[in-house]
Amino acid sequence: MWSKIVKNRVSIRFWSSLVPDEPEGPCVLTDVPGPCSKKLKKDLGKMQYAGAVKVFGNYQKSIGNYLVDADDNVLLDMYAQISTLALGYNHPELLKVFQDEKNLKTMINRPALGVFPGEDQPKRVHSVVSQIAPCLPKINLMMCGACANEQTFKNVFIAYQRKKRGKKDFTDEEKHTAVINQPPGAPNLCILSFAGAFHGRTTGALATTHTKFIHKIDFPSLDWPVAHFPLYKYPLGEHERENAVEDKKSLAQVEDLIATYNKKDTPVAGVIVEPIQSEGGNNEASPKYFQELQKIVKKNNAYLVFDEVQTGGGGTGKFWCHEYFDLATPPDVVTFSKKFCLGGYFHSDELTPDKPFRVFNTWMGDPGKVIMLETIIRVMREQDLLDNVQEAGARLKCGLFELEEEFSEIMNSVRGPGTFLAFNIVKPELRDTVLQKLLQKGVLCGGCGDLGIRFRPALIFQKHHAEIVLDKLREVLNELNC
Amino acid sequence: MWSKIVKNRVSIRFWSSLVPDEPEGPCVLTDVPGPCSKKLKKDLGKMQYAGAVKVFGNYQKSIGNYLVDADDNVLLDMYAQISTLALGYNHPELLKVFQDEKNLKTMINRPALGVFPGEDQPKRVHSVVSQIAPCLPKINLMMCGACANEQTFKNVFIAYQRKKRGKKDFTDEEKHTAVINQPPGAPNLCILSFAGAFHGRTTGALATTHTKFIHKIDFPSLDWPVAHFPLYKYPLGEHERENAVEDKKSLAQVEDLIATYNKKDTPVAGVIVEPIQSEGGNNEASPKYFQELQKIVKKNNAYLVFDEVQTGGGGTGKFWCHEYFDLATPPDVVTFSKKFCLGGYFHSDELTPDKPFRVFNTWMGDPGKVIMLETIIRVMREQDLLDNVQEAGARLKCGLFELEEEFSEIMNSVRGPGTFLAFNIVKPELRDTVLQKLLQKGVLCGGCGDLGIRFRPALIFQKHHAEIVLDKLREVLNELNC
Repeated sequence: MWSKIVKNRVSIRFWSSLVPDEPEGPCVLTDVPGPCSKKLKKDLGKMQYAGAVKVFGNYQKSIGNYLVDADDNVLLDMYAQISTLALGYNHPELLKVFQDEKNLKTMINRPALGVFPGEDQPKRVHSVVSQIAPCLPKINLMMCGACANEQTFKNVFIAYQRKKRGKKDFTDEEKHTAVINQPPGAPNLCILSFAGAFHGRTTGALATTHTKFIHKIDFPSLDWPVAHFPLYKYPLGEHERENAVEDKKSLAQVEDLIATYNKKDTPVAGVIVEPIQSEGGNNEASPKYFQELQKIVKKNNAYLVFDEVQTGGGGTGKFWCHEYFDLATPPDVVTFSKKFCLGGYFHSDELTPDKPFRVFNTWMGDPGKVIMLETIIRVMREQDLLDNVQEAGARLKCGLFELEEEFSEIMNSVRGPGTFLAFNIVKPELRDTVLQKLLQKGVLCGGCGDLGIRFRPALIFQKHHAEIVLDKLREVLNELNC
Repeated sequence: MWSKIVKNRVSIRFWSSLVPDEPEGPCVLTDVPGPCSKKLKKDLGKMQYAGAVKVFGNYQKSIGNYLVDADDNVLLDMYAQISTLALGYNHPELLKVFQDEKNLKTMINRPALGVFPGEDQPKRVHSVVSQIAPCLPKINLMMCGACANEQTFKNVFIAYQRKKRGKKDFTDEEKHTAVINQPPGAPNLCILSFAGAFHGRTTGALATTHTKFIHKIDFPSLDWPVAHFPLYKYPLGEHERENAVEDKKSLAQVEDLIATYNKKDTPVAGVIVEPIQSEGGNNEASPKYFQELQKIVKKNNAYLVFDEVQTGGGGTGKFWCHEYFDLATPPDVVTFSKKFCLGGYFHSDELTPDKPFRVFNTWMGDPGKVIMLETIIRVMREQDLLDNVQEAGARLKCGLFELEEEFSEIMNSVRGPGTFLAFNIVKPELRDTVLQKLLQKGVLCGGCGDLGIRFRPALIFQKHHAEIVLDKLREVLNELNC
């Protein structure tokens, strides 16, 4: 879809940063977290459970790829607020947005977009759809990724039941039973998902999430099918046969589970999948795998949902990660959030609801966030950030390949497109040690799965930042090797 | 909790509006919706399902209690964006907030608050908690009301299972089964809710929502118990005996359902209830009812959740509606959203999770919205808006009582505290006619239940606005009486 856009590339000086006034590199003054972060965590903990807090940020001072923390440590941020920052910190174009009085009023007077949208909303939605829609005609806006997936399931269930019901209206029994959570009004339908998947933490989204037990234990759930997801061996070139077996194993399970659940009268209405399992471990599958998966889903009259909450928005070097898969037809739904500043999904005409208030909530998104998204899309185009991601990612990946060769007893399985990269450390505790040592050297990364370290920098991450990351990682690996 | 605050009442001129530059009254130039709204709806509908859109707003021109629509109709807004606007449109104090560079940066650099909160976050959270917490020590921030309820359920399930498990750790079987949605890791626990309740539209929240079939039909759900909610007859003074019978019927059902579900090995871990059922029809229950309900919940080792998403924030004339109930002890959880600009909940220490990442998501709220909430709380205090709501509400309710006496064959059952008012029209189609006729005269109200018309104005709604509403309603009732 970027091909539609006339490129207006801004030429940049060698090594110059895309965001002005970035520091030259990280600078760590204290233990991380330092004394100020520790004190603030204690303060916050008195009012709010703060067990997951890592460091406190100073978002007045943070700039570009650099998070400045409460102790004035300057950290090269390879995690970008769990992959949510498209343009890094304090991007000058984002700081300008709400200096425009019209934009400010749109944000402050946040209306209930489903019933009283602003007169500028159709134009704004059009600007978003025309620039980034993944060959799907319709959009629906939400607040976050979990909600996007939850509401997507509703579009899927509505369309699935409509096919079954034909032109008949709801029966009185359906109307009566729906209200009290019982079939046939609340039918036994399900969404198939994959082991290692992460789709959010509200009840429906969580029923399709299967990463760590700690995300799910003690919470009642739905008996929905979970298929094996391919687990590849790396380097890919050396494991083609084993990985093809993984693809087949997963696809066969999908077919089996659809048959099993159809037989036990809980038909599979939809299948949700991440183009790359993110929280679950940067687990990739081949284009061929996804092409076959789409065929199976179609054959079974179900709908295919790509969850691009983490993969969407450019980190893979394409705007949508599933563009890499050369699918015969577009998927039925593509959900998004994170770098988009709000949640939502693109969907086919077939998945449009037939009546008002079936897929609805009070806010239906947030026009202030749509304005930020418009700015992000414009900057991505003007600064050619997808190309930047490809270039910076290629440099980083190349360096990682060198390191995994040199330190093969510690790290392996370098993988991913663009800057959406990860590698494994041989043991879980050692992985945590590497993460902490990197942080102490001023490079903030995320974990994923049991062994993975993932990079999720902003789209303004460049080759010279990659050199810093590689240097620091080499230092850490050398220390571990001693 | 307002008693803690030194009041700093701003004296106001008789009939002067709390927001400067409000028009003197509504002004309707076209059919509502008018040609511009109709055209915009057609435009939007090409990209997004727009079946529920009523009118498009001009949020540059809207001011105070007045929504200016795309056709320049000036509407007195008694619905305030589904009860979400605390200070009306373009309040000068809210327009100032992001002119402050620090606030602007906090908003733009929206961090993942659960892991990398800003160094100013503890102070901001403290300012909110110390001013508005309903006698509960802990807060958790989310994005919307449905998410607040969903995550609340998790706190409830964690605490319930912890009591049962004691100091034992999770078993391997629990860890393994949780990930694939099966007991004992994903145990058969439930939340009890009430007929006519509305708690949101994600799978867990929707399982406790029982308003209209159109909100639920075709969506799989959870077999969770639904108790009768008291349905009062009005005027209350004339129906004390019948209404007490309603209380007893509901409470007996709650006890029965808890016993039944405990027996079928799906224990009730929590009970969720609105202090006034809002979407369901402004259905009230007595303080005594809620006191008894709390006793039953406690006796059964479950937790009581008040959903104050719509009732919270001042519309009832108290900050929290459940303050009217004189409960023996605070409820276990109070959830909020709408007028608070973001979602969240206050909870007891007992409901604090014991480990990180059990109740978690990417954003955990939005610091930009917390800044808006701080401003709203300050303006409420400075302008004494709770007193204003009581005064304006008393005038409006008094006028409604007069109208229901005069037009008893059309309207009845005037009810509610503060400006959180409603009345019934005798037939559903006639109710819709009254709503449309009011809109055409420039007064925008909401429906609720089958027969209800609800008022949900902003907190800056005053007595002189009430006079306008009463005049227009009288005109409509007179027209229907002809």
